[in-house]
Amino acid sequence: MFRHVVMFKWNDDVDPAHVEATGAALDALVATIPEVGDYRHGPDLGLSDGNFDYVIVGEYASTDDYVTYRDHPDHQQVIADYIKGRVSARSAVQYDAG
Amino acid sequence: MFRHVVMFKWNDDVDPAHVEATGAALDALVATIPEVGDYRHGPDLGLSDGNFDYVIVGEYASTDDYVTYRDHPDHQQVIADYIKGRVSARSAVQYDAG
Repeated sequence: MFRHVVMFKWNDDVDPAHVEATGAALDALVATIPEVGDYRHGPDLGLSDGNFDYVIVGEYASTDDYVTYRDHPDHQQVIADYIKGRVSARSAVQYDAG
Repeated sequence: MFRHVVMFKWNDDVDPAHVEATGAALDALVATIPEVGDYRHGPDLGLSDGNFDYVIVGEYASTDDYVTYRDHPDHQQVIADYIKGRVSARSAVQYDAG
């Protein structure tokens, strides 16, 4: 199983309504991109100092399915509308999760 | 379901043997800490420039179970032996994964 994991730190002016709208937009991708498998995302719970603010863990049957998701126009639109220009840090890993 | 997600960038002098040994040490935690649920970790596949090098996604039935894992001496020993002083960047999120 292939996993794509990505974290963000939001800019200081990003408000909770934007975070909630981002979550809804991400959820909608599961309906429109059949190559997306298990897809679980959400805000940091605030248990630890220094954490990033948001994480997405997506599962795909193959690297090709991940690339289809990555390059899908609906996914790119979510990035453009909700993420690009709104984050101060990003970290990502793609890995073989067994 | 509670998830703890953490990524690292290794220092330049960390070699593949160290990465493999870290993976084995992490796998051993599942056997010794019963509060750990699904636990899948591994190195970045190298598909994307700028990615972090390693990710761990751990699942726990509750925040309390995560805290038991976090503070467990076997986990702290893995951090001391394999991670502390060996990484140039770290990012983490704990979240409610539904």
